[in-house]
Amino acid sequence: MDNFIFLFNEKEAKYKQVYQQIKVLITQGTLTPNDSLPSIRKLAETLQVSRNTTLTAYEQLVAEGYIRGEGRKGYFVNALEQVFLQEQEQPIMSQPKSNTTSLLFDFRAGAVDQQHFPMKTWRQMSNQVLQEPSCYQYGEMFGDPLLKEQLVQYLLQARGVSTNIENIVIGSSTQQMLLYLGFLLKDHFPSILLEDPGYNGAREAFQLHHFSIEAMPVLETGAQLDVLTHCQSRLVYVTPSHHFPYGVSMNIQQRQALIQWAQQVDGFILEDDYDGEFRYSQQPFPALASIDPSRVIYLGTFSKSFLPGVRLSYMVLPNALVQPFKERFAQFEQNASSLHQRTMAQFMAQGEWTRHIKRMRMTYKQKMQHLVQELQRQFGQQVTILGEQSGLYVLVKILSPLSEQQLIQRAASYGVKVYPTSPFFLHETAEQPMLQLGFSKLTMEEINLGVERLKEAWQP
Amino acid sequence: MDNFIFLFNEKEAKYKQVYQQIKVLITQGTLTPNDSLPSIRKLAETLQVSRNTTLTAYEQLVAEGYIRGEGRKGYFVNALEQVFLQEQEQPIMSQPKSNTTSLLFDFRAGAVDQQHFPMKTWRQMSNQVLQEPSCYQYGEMFGDPLLKEQLVQYLLQARGVSTNIENIVIGSSTQQMLLYLGFLLKDHFPSILLEDPGYNGAREAFQLHHFSIEAMPVLETGAQLDVLTHCQSRLVYVTPSHHFPYGVSMNIQQRQALIQWAQQVDGFILEDDYDGEFRYSQQPFPALASIDPSRVIYLGTFSKSFLPGVRLSYMVLPNALVQPFKERFAQFEQNASSLHQRTMAQFMAQGEWTRHIKRMRMTYKQKMQHLVQELQRQFGQQVTILGEQSGLYVLVKILSPLSEQQLIQRAASYGVKVYPTSPFFLHETAEQPMLQLGFSKLTMEEINLGVERLKEAWQP
Repeated sequence: MDNFIFLFNEKEAKYKQVYQQIKVLITQGTLTPNDSLPSIRKLAETLQVSRNTTLTAYEQLVAEGYIRGEGRKGYFVNALEQVFLQEQEQPIMSQPKSNTTSLLFDFRAGAVDQQHFPMKTWRQMSNQVLQEPSCYQYGEMFGDPLLKEQLVQYLLQARGVSTNIENIVIGSSTQQMLLYLGFLLKDHFPSILLEDPGYNGAREAFQLHHFSIEAMPVLETGAQLDVLTHCQSRLVYVTPSHHFPYGVSMNIQQRQALIQWAQQVDGFILEDDYDGEFRYSQQPFPALASIDPSRVIYLGTFSKSFLPGVRLSYMVLPNALVQPFKERFAQFEQNASSLHQRTMAQFMAQGEWTRHIKRMRMTYKQKMQHLVQELQRQFGQQVTILGEQSGLYVLVKILSPLSEQQLIQRAASYGVKVYPTSPFFLHETAEQPMLQLGFSKLTMEEINLGVERLKEAWQP
Repeated sequence: MDNFIFLFNEKEAKYKQVYQQIKVLITQGTLTPNDSLPSIRKLAETLQVSRNTTLTAYEQLVAEGYIRGEGRKGYFVNALEQVFLQEQEQPIMSQPKSNTTSLLFDFRAGAVDQQHFPMKTWRQMSNQVLQEPSCYQYGEMFGDPLLKEQLVQYLLQARGVSTNIENIVIGSSTQQMLLYLGFLLKDHFPSILLEDPGYNGAREAFQLHHFSIEAMPVLETGAQLDVLTHCQSRLVYVTPSHHFPYGVSMNIQQRQALIQWAQQVDGFILEDDYDGEFRYSQQPFPALASIDPSRVIYLGTFSKSFLPGVRLSYMVLPNALVQPFKERFAQFEQNASSLHQRTMAQFMAQGEWTRHIKRMRMTYKQKMQHLVQELQRQFGQQVTILGEQSGLYVLVKILSPLSEQQLIQRAASYGVKVYPTSPFFLHETAEQPMLQLGFSKLTMEEINLGVERLKEAWQP
């Protein structure tokens, strides 16, 4: 089907009418499974509406399962049984309970690109793994040996960390591992130094354990390490490769200063390397754990680099902590799925992991550049962008009389979700409203349109 | 191929020679993929060796991937690429490092039956789920809404527990949930009452939080609830449907007494219903949480009823704890795989779950009966069997001059792994050595042969 023509009424939003009409064509059988739909641009031209209108209609149809997007190929009609199945499970649009604008562009940082996900390979390997007898019993307590083997190789090659299988512990998330570690550390370390601003999820984990918390101020230019000379703590939690949220990396002098401090106070550094894979301007910096593994608890995750839903994370313990940790948790079962662990081990062993990271680095680099460009084009001097060298989000400082909260609400009323940074601050505060925009799961076109809408939303 | 004939030498164990010969036939291509092998019985007759010998050889070939067992149909040759793939990953027999007897019969309780696992359905559903956009971002913090919806229905229908989506929290394991709960409970409840003997994994979780621990003695006939009248605790952890490890169920009087106590002291009962699905003699008893949900934290898991490797557990919080828990963990990500959660939701929604439980109850009932029968046949009055009414293991009390440890070692030297019960005891001790024998992943024939070997191993 190349195009549609129909008349609009004045009562309802145009995108709703487009949505309704196409839905009727599908349910009546005029459009049949796998029929292709006109492109967003083409349909907009024919109907003489904005591309925003046709995109919104398509997005709604996708959300409800009537049609699917297949990247550059365009949009296609789904088989109807699928639709009804999905509708039963999750009614999305029927009986709207509030009249809020439905969410169209979600600049969420905690998501990954679906289009480039190696679906076929991952499925094949998962399916294969289900035949292994080891899947039918409890997995190894501290993680699957095959996955640990792969991680040993990967960490050496990609992050410069030289370690052994025995030092690696697999967990379901960084937070879960921090909570477990807390039981071990808090007897000897009553307080901990945290970056400010910093990752609030880690802060919460330490607070649950009643660590007393000291702040290490971080500016847009980097961490202020002079606090090390007069703090009480002998434990510090940092994100040296890609500071959360500012995105700065510690230089080698700072890294060495941190390590020396840990050696002097006989303490430990918790290095959270949550997205060290994605650095766009240079090679990723080697991890702190590559300088002195005896002073660093290294934390890594597959949530950004692969899929948050698999809930796979890992840590590398310094030798001194391996036995104490394993003794403390000798009666505890593994938290991460052994099916996913096994599949990931296969995926890495066959070189798919390296390919995936390379591919995603390219994809995300392009998206990042595009987002930065669009923000600059639409907002010019009104915005300052931070952290565009690496990672899956940028920070956007906005010159505006509106508060962070107001900016978020205005955006939401235009169907765009952007995220606050204020929860990351402990004592420090940003002098201007600053928002977090993730881009990983958005298409180029969605980035365009999302930023366009932000421009409208934030107009004085 | 119907049968083989070859000559044995005197140097090596016969099973090794059988193993070697068949391996050669496969690698040389005499036997080709999907060729069927003679049955264990038939080959034993032809070669004039015991069935133990042929079974052992086949088991080894299965372990190394050369052949596969297909239940009653018998054994078949695998394609060779598969074998080499598996060999690379996990060399099982090449270069034996020690001369210990390889483990042949593992009476492990923490495993499930592989043969009846609904592999095809689960795969299909997992594959489908991977297409949902929600898989590419962090899952809902306290669990997938679709899975919680299914659990609400299931808990009402199968366990008599009436609850709401809001009260359910999904986690990766019972231990992980107990650890998280501990952060919430320990401020108000400095001590906890635990069954003795009881599940050591739970005890460890409470010990990590430095709860002071009081013991509720449990005899083979049931829990001694009179401790409730004079204990300090206002918190108790119990396994009322199937006491761990004795296997007794609390009767309705005991259940009501517990609930009344919790009401009087304004406390909570942690009800661990780890395998309530598998009761063979009557209908499963309704859960404690069905009597007074305001006093019970109900804990359930898919580890026994489905697959330990998926790491899916759940709890039902009393209304009074819902908000406090969710506030305390507002910044914490979900621990269980969202792919597995989604797949399980589908699996339940389509009725597969109920079918699976019914099928497994039948299967396990047969295996349980068979194990009990074989133990009685081989050992007669020498053993007392506990807990054969439900669950995936029995306890075996043995009249023997040997200690628990010695019995385990003797069994191991005959290639049989059985498990101690002493770690479950806090103050109480068993007056006779008592071992835990799980049967879920063993075939009928393996149960036969395993018990036969135990008989040999434990001969005076």
